[in-house]
Amino acid sequence: MDLAQYMDQRARLVNEALDRYTSAGREEDCLKPVLEGIPPVLLEAMRYSLLAGGKRLRPLLVMAAAELWGLTPEKVMPTACALEMIHTYSLIHDDLPCMDDDDLRRGRPTNHKVYGEAVATLAGDALLTMAFELLALQSRVEGSLPERVTRVVAEMAAAAGAAGMVGGQVEDLLWEEKDAPPEQLERIHLLKTGALFRAALRCGAILGGAAAPEIAALDRYAYHFGLAFQIQDDVLDVVGDVAKMGKAVGSDARQSKSTYVSHFGLEGARQMAREHVAAAQEALAPFGERGRVLAALAQFVIDREG
Amino acid sequence: MDLAQYMDQRARLVNEALDRYTSAGREEDCLKPVLEGIPPVLLEAMRYSLLAGGKRLRPLLVMAAAELWGLTPEKVMPTACALEMIHTYSLIHDDLPCMDDDDLRRGRPTNHKVYGEAVATLAGDALLTMAFELLALQSRVEGSLPERVTRVVAEMAAAAGAAGMVGGQVEDLLWEEKDAPPEQLERIHLLKTGALFRAALRCGAILGGAAAPEIAALDRYAYHFGLAFQIQDDVLDVVGDVAKMGKAVGSDARQSKSTYVSHFGLEGARQMAREHVAAAQEALAPFGERGRVLAALAQFVIDREG
Repeated sequence: MDLAQYMDQRARLVNEALDRYTSAGREEDCLKPVLEGIPPVLLEAMRYSLLAGGKRLRPLLVMAAAELWGLTPEKVMPTACALEMIHTYSLIHDDLPCMDDDDLRRGRPTNHKVYGEAVATLAGDALLTMAFELLALQSRVEGSLPERVTRVVAEMAAAAGAAGMVGGQVEDLLWEEKDAPPEQLERIHLLKTGALFRAALRCGAILGGAAAPEIAALDRYAYHFGLAFQIQDDVLDVVGDVAKMGKAVGSDARQSKSTYVSHFGLEGARQMAREHVAAAQEALAPFGERGRVLAALAQFVIDREG
Repeated sequence: MDLAQYMDQRARLVNEALDRYTSAGREEDCLKPVLEGIPPVLLEAMRYSLLAGGKRLRPLLVMAAAELWGLTPEKVMPTACALEMIHTYSLIHDDLPCMDDDDLRRGRPTNHKVYGEAVATLAGDALLTMAFELLALQSRVEGSLPERVTRVVAEMAAAAGAAGMVGGQVEDLLWEEKDAPPEQLERIHLLKTGALFRAALRCGAILGGAAAPEIAALDRYAYHFGLAFQIQDDVLDVVGDVAKMGKAVGSDARQSKSTYVSHFGLEGARQMAREHVAAAQEALAPFGERGRVLAALAQFVIDREG
């Protein structure tokens, strides 16, 4: 299969949907969040970060998981886009001066550099909230079962919240400037980025009607996928190209941050990433030929340059 | 009826539930958010603001509305507590230095004064996210219909987000230090506080199985209830007692903030508040004797001293 073409086509569908969900004036479409009354500067700030591009990896994982049970991308689009909104809100808040204090994101000034801290904080809050509105609207998609949708809402909230992504960000802050041992590093990444990857896969599967053993297989895939992703991030921070990354490189070393490369060396980290990709692909065995998209996506994680 | 006793008893139920939902170690209770793995400082920061007291007015409105259809408080407790979590997150974020920069809330130092800006921001994010987890868990309460729960999630997200409460906070910031005309003042309050009161009532009613005309009646009640509440807030900022308010008084005047008192004078504002309470009570006509709790709650809004 041509993964690049597959990813481009899916990312375009996601971009179109994200634009549609946050554009006023198409009231014939009942499947969209309430937009009436949103202060223009707030909607602009939300869209500034939401439509800034990116690979749309989390929505892709929702769609790829749902596809295992024969659902087309359109059938899970609200859930897929909700994931991207949650991811985007987390980037806006992580970039704030009181957090990582970053100026550049996806090649452009960060949200608070453009709109100020107050509006940036609120744009993040609004994206997180709209994500749950979209998750609820998933139940209006023909064929969606409301009991699956409530399960998806619970899964997503648990993954994005204090016991997941937000907790990971707190631990990341607590270990800043300390030398986090590898186990702690893994824990931070499993929470901070892994939880959302896992939720993407689980929610796609839940909407598709997956059984418990199938969800467990996707959990194993997600575990290895997430770690491979993070290790490759650490590798790219050393060897990456600013233009392809859309953000500064070498920042981990400058901040003396504990990373997989600082612990295991460049080649050691690369080897670990390769092993995680192989383990992720093995976890797909129960799906046979149907698992080929997810297998290719795992390989992409370490082949990517940005 | 003895409203004070009713309110105390309900607030106690809410406080117990909020404590239970955020306390580890009672795993027999499936009806609670995922707590395992939450960094202790984050859970502490969340509980610091969540369990700081307050009248629990929003949960009370959920319960009072649900009661119109015969539901006991226990039957809507996850939804009632979710409202309080959303309200609490909004207070934490509003108090941040980049927003209103407040040091005191409910008689204690604000969240960021105790835990720092980064953890306070994340504690707010986590409370907002946990609110949606609780809303989803509402579907596990015996007798809850999942299609009503997905509707509640959509209602709550719309009310709390960019087209509701968050939008109101943005407009409040935009009009800061400008002399907002009365229409704009009303708009800010309807978004910033009114939207959540309205959602509380609507969601209690939806869980109870209300029909559209009944929800419309509660919308009218909510409109007047919310404005009476805000006007009384403005009145109390002039005549209130610091000890009973748990926050500084006179801050509106010091900041030359446009308020109902600055526009209409103290007696003018009081008269408007009384008229809104009467209109709120009139809106309850379709419920007859069943509406007495909500009628008393509307009266409480202007009788309160904090």
